[in-house]
Amino acid sequence: MRSSQLFTKTTKNVPADETARNAQLLIQAGYVYKVMAGVYAFTPLGLRVVENIKQIVREEMDAISGQELIMSSLQKRSTWEATGRWDDDVVDIWFKSKLKDGTDVGFGWSHEEAIIEMLKQYLSSYKDLPINVYQFQTKLRNETRAKSGIMRGREFVMKDMYSCNLDAEQHEKFYQATIDAYMRIYDRLGIGEDTYVTFASGGAFTKFSHEFQTVCDAGEDSIYLGKDKNGRTIAVNEEVGDDETLADLGVKREDLKKVKSAEVGNIFNFGTQKSEDTDFTFTNEQGEKQFVHLGSYGIGITRVMGVIVEKLADDKGLVWPEAVAPVKVYLARLGDTPDVTDLADNIYDELTSKKVAVLYDDRDVRAGEKFADADLLGIPYRVVISSKTIETGSFEVKARASGETQLISRQELMRQLGA
Amino acid sequence: MRSSQLFTKTTKNVPADETARNAQLLIQAGYVYKVMAGVYAFTPLGLRVVENIKQIVREEMDAISGQELIMSSLQKRSTWEATGRWDDDVVDIWFKSKLKDGTDVGFGWSHEEAIIEMLKQYLSSYKDLPINVYQFQTKLRNETRAKSGIMRGREFVMKDMYSCNLDAEQHEKFYQATIDAYMRIYDRLGIGEDTYVTFASGGAFTKFSHEFQTVCDAGEDSIYLGKDKNGRTIAVNEEVGDDETLADLGVKREDLKKVKSAEVGNIFNFGTQKSEDTDFTFTNEQGEKQFVHLGSYGIGITRVMGVIVEKLADDKGLVWPEAVAPVKVYLARLGDTPDVTDLADNIYDELTSKKVAVLYDDRDVRAGEKFADADLLGIPYRVVISSKTIETGSFEVKARASGETQLISRQELMRQLGA
Repeated sequence: MRSSQLFTKTTKNVPADETARNAQLLIQAGYVYKVMAGVYAFTPLGLRVVENIKQIVREEMDAISGQELIMSSLQKRSTWEATGRWDDDVVDIWFKSKLKDGTDVGFGWSHEEAIIEMLKQYLSSYKDLPINVYQFQTKLRNETRAKSGIMRGREFVMKDMYSCNLDAEQHEKFYQATIDAYMRIYDRLGIGEDTYVTFASGGAFTKFSHEFQTVCDAGEDSIYLGKDKNGRTIAVNEEVGDDETLADLGVKREDLKKVKSAEVGNIFNFGTQKSEDTDFTFTNEQGEKQFVHLGSYGIGITRVMGVIVEKLADDKGLVWPEAVAPVKVYLARLGDTPDVTDLADNIYDELTSKKVAVLYDDRDVRAGEKFADADLLGIPYRVVISSKTIETGSFEVKARASGETQLISRQELMRQLGA
Repeated sequence: MRSSQLFTKTTKNVPADETARNAQLLIQAGYVYKVMAGVYAFTPLGLRVVENIKQIVREEMDAISGQELIMSSLQKRSTWEATGRWDDDVVDIWFKSKLKDGTDVGFGWSHEEAIIEMLKQYLSSYKDLPINVYQFQTKLRNETRAKSGIMRGREFVMKDMYSCNLDAEQHEKFYQATIDAYMRIYDRLGIGEDTYVTFASGGAFTKFSHEFQTVCDAGEDSIYLGKDKNGRTIAVNEEVGDDETLADLGVKREDLKKVKSAEVGNIFNFGTQKSEDTDFTFTNEQGEKQFVHLGSYGIGITRVMGVIVEKLADDKGLVWPEAVAPVKVYLARLGDTPDVTDLADNIYDELTSKKVAVLYDDRDVRAGEKFADADLLGIPYRVVISSKTIETGSFEVKARASGETQLISRQELMRQLGA
């Protein structure tokens, strides 16, 4: 990709109507465009980040036998009435409208009831279980306030997975496998070290659910962090961190540290509660009707993108981990003499042909502007080609995260960039 | 993918509430699930087809310098007021709702005005042009009737591209490049031979727009098809096929054949009309304000999927071209003796490791059921492994489209399947 052809532009102006640092930086760098409060379009660089995050999540969901599908945004009233969740007094974030003939429709803010209704058509026997399905869906939520940038929007991309199991034991096994898959995801996204499986409030069926919380000053939550009596790390959402619960978990408040954190995932064990509400059953080996054991597992894709920004950005701009960066290399050509242009074109062609994604800054702007853009955009490696680097017979490579600069040979450059 | 693990099931029952053949077959084969009239979820096999079609379109849009992004579903009223298209009397397919504070919002049925508003933020100088952007967006349209299955839904996936050019000449060049790209797409999708660039009604700016029409009995349109005086194929939508227009185009009605057809794409030249309505401008070399020359280019992704079904399906079920099929091979294991199971597992592993997508029918059901499913699902190649094929030392391969069956060696099997 050539900078001269990319239609977005960076700007030094901090958007006056955004208080969230993630939105400010993403807008300034040209990754997102604000449509209205809590609603963002993802421009080419931003879309690449979203797709990179989705691909990592997809691979890990597939690895635990998830089957990807895509439900609809439009929702029927009847789908949600069985659980009482059509009612605006129960769920106050519905967007609703009407068909021409007056039929009510809603726009999916969640898909639990819709997935159950769909699966009923296919599931009949114990032989059909387990079933694990997931989707990447654009959720629409009529939030009263939307001030956290892409961390909490009125329109956002979510991975939601649903598990159907025979019994509590089969459910528990999958639930644990999902916890492991989620931790692999956060590791691959570059936030694993600061992300904790956290006790949070449960539902009708369980005392606790589990959240995945990333330590982050911009987070809306607070968690207690520490070690239990076996020396294992334990994290408890403040909302359930009363003395009784802490005692149950075998920890003392004074041994725990309270930190700000952002939720990057949550998982629920519904037991058979939701299946009973919706009459979601199968026939067991004895021919008896049984309720399905259900679980639900969410990761807000664009929310996680926002958390990565908040967590890793510095005073110069965005800092993307390699796995999610829109491109791996920012190739800055300084000057437009034929030797510089030829070499830069040549390096661009070689990297591109070897499947290394490059943003080639071929614009006629001064070096300082290119360097500032490379930093603001947060591309993992900046490679500079100028008359000076040609003289030395080397290439200047700077790692965005560490700031470390090296002068290396072409062969070493290709090796380091994985080409 | 193993059939035993796929949660969808085929059914012999034709859905009573569907009149469209595409919806009937896709539901029976387990590619789509009907949420309500005109609203479908895409189950794992269906989602793969959608993604395959998207990927072909993506590659061709990228090849003509398209930049992919994703806009939002939620739309502001003000975005659409400049062109008068917020008004329900002008656009009668809006779904609308309100934010908590009473602010009107709409759900994107098109994104022309939204894209223009976004591009205004980035475009200032002639140096920024040309710009070509596209997206794959879920469009929501409040259609009065929805009886054509996935060919015309209330919720569907569309590729929409928008071009911004300096002047008529630059626009025309891109418009022609897009026509060529579209024809490459239909070729790759397996419907190129029967798809025609068709004269259709224009807008405020041009006499004609161009549609891409595929000859298809299930289509909602009719076109006149023939040769012009230079011997070139010409297609004219019935809606503009009056005597005067035909004379202008140098053809006579009696030389043309009228056929049923389905629209699979359309492209519009807006000239500067829409830019004038929305004050979408740039500064030219002389420092003068100029209106952008705009074009818009659509392909209904799920609609095209429906047309492929209608066009290629036969009395046994779906028939997918290789490029869009969810998998390339249907591996039918007949019986469960160890020799059969081992060999089938082994072939499955080898194909999968060589990136050939396989649906492995490892179920304990009779041969007839497996064969019927292979046909209904429309997978390009059916490979049978049984005690009988093992005895002959060969593999039975049947091509779905031609029905041709071969008995071939393992080496030849791998060669033919591209492994």
